[in-house]
Amino acid sequence: MRFAKGHGTENDFVILPDPDGTLSLSAASVAALCDRRAGIGGDGVLRVVRTKAFDEPLTGPAASSAECEWFMDYRNADGSVAEMCGNGVRVFARYLLSAGLLAETSFGVGTRAGTRQVTVHEDSDITVDMGPVGMLGRGTAVLGGAELTGERVSVGNPHLACRVAGPVAGVDLGTAPVFDAAEFPQGANLEVFCESEPGVLDMRVYERGAAETRSCGTGIVAAAAAASGPGTDAQWTVRVPGGTCTVALESGSARLRGPAVIVAEGDIRLPG
Amino acid sequence: MRFAKGHGTENDFVILPDPDGTLSLSAASVAALCDRRAGIGGDGVLRVVRTKAFDEPLTGPAASSAECEWFMDYRNADGSVAEMCGNGVRVFARYLLSAGLLAETSFGVGTRAGTRQVTVHEDSDITVDMGPVGMLGRGTAVLGGAELTGERVSVGNPHLACRVAGPVAGVDLGTAPVFDAAEFPQGANLEVFCESEPGVLDMRVYERGAAETRSCGTGIVAAAAAASGPGTDAQWTVRVPGGTCTVALESGSARLRGPAVIVAEGDIRLPG
Repeated sequence: MRFAKGHGTENDFVILPDPDGTLSLSAASVAALCDRRAGIGGDGVLRVVRTKAFDEPLTGPAASSAECEWFMDYRNADGSVAEMCGNGVRVFARYLLSAGLLAETSFGVGTRAGTRQVTVHEDSDITVDMGPVGMLGRGTAVLGGAELTGERVSVGNPHLACRVAGPVAGVDLGTAPVFDAAEFPQGANLEVFCESEPGVLDMRVYERGAAETRSCGTGIVAAAAAASGPGTDAQWTVRVPGGTCTVALESGSARLRGPAVIVAEGDIRLPG
Repeated sequence: MRFAKGHGTENDFVILPDPDGTLSLSAASVAALCDRRAGIGGDGVLRVVRTKAFDEPLTGPAASSAECEWFMDYRNADGSVAEMCGNGVRVFARYLLSAGLLAETSFGVGTRAGTRQVTVHEDSDITVDMGPVGMLGRGTAVLGGAELTGERVSVGNPHLACRVAGPVAGVDLGTAPVFDAAEFPQGANLEVFCESEPGVLDMRVYERGAAETRSCGTGIVAAAAAASGPGTDAQWTVRVPGGTCTVALESGSARLRGPAVIVAEGDIRLPG
């Protein structure tokens, strides 16, 4: 099986080219591919399939092949299906170009959350339209025995983005935050951020069901929105442990710009 | 640059074919290759070079090209040079065969610790002659506030192998063990083991300078030697989190047998 490996701010993916949708990808296969020791290793799998060959029934704002030639079939490392991944879409777009599957610099990518518009810049950064950002009011979490307060933000998935006083390096993200089930019935990602310079946020994230990660695309958008306040257009540079992105907030929607790199390509023997 | 990825009981390696010794491999390049998110990811790099093309001056029992056609230039994930790696030699041998660089099933592999004799079995296991095992007497370490006592064993590198009463899953290896500097001036790997069935050891290992790992070839040998006692010939099955190996102890030397798998092959763009 052909594969590539790539990352966006160190959120990394195993990419499987499958233009005609002939790959049958079980949860166990995905987990084996993402195993960092016995497989290739990654935070998830991006299956690259033509939208017209993607035959899974879609609910909600489904992507159509008229809007986007290629569909990102995103799977979490545990094999479960996911709607969207902001860093994943950039890596997906970079792969389309490097593999010669597309030649444009502006195009739509199909996802289970609908079509995402992508722009490839000359400096090799990629911008993804992340869609509407919902500001849901104040919220709280308990982290290591202490209460944190911040903004509840929806970027398709739920976030609590908390401004902290000191450097974010001083926050202990070694244990899972505990959320109020009434505020976050599905749990949430927790972001801590501070404005280290005017227009620049330093941020760290604890991802729901996982642990602290090097980067989280929707979390970066959530922190920028929380730093701006509801209904405010703004542009932020956001530094995370895995790299730097910029967020443009305009009329309640967000665009996320950042790097995306293909590291390796080859053949893999699927275990089992 | 061509690469392969493989593992032996989930001790995993980036393999770089370099028959003519033309690759210049800096510590930074090794660290970039072994980075699990921005690179390929691995516990180390195995450079595959003809012994006659390996021009680094060797001290000690150096391998000669008469004894072994191929030399394993092993580097730790941080880029530092290492002498030997029991799981690494099996993966190295598997690569030689799968890449068609050798056709024999019994051959020598050059390492900085001298030539290691390798035998490839029909069931796809590989046996490596690990050389002499030194029994150095009793020793102690403090782990999570409690004192552990065991056997000090040298398998080229220093170990403290401790028999514990209960299941090894119950031991907290979340923090580094503290050794007596007089007993272990260079530090040591710590193994905890118990005999779960006659002839079968369950083992876990905390590797020096690292953390708990899925497997450690020399640690498996050290635990088998400690379970046998000095000067005793014996054969053990040793189960570690990453898989199962067998150890044959005979006249003060050890042979380690276990699986080795090549998972993927391809091309990588070295970062930087």
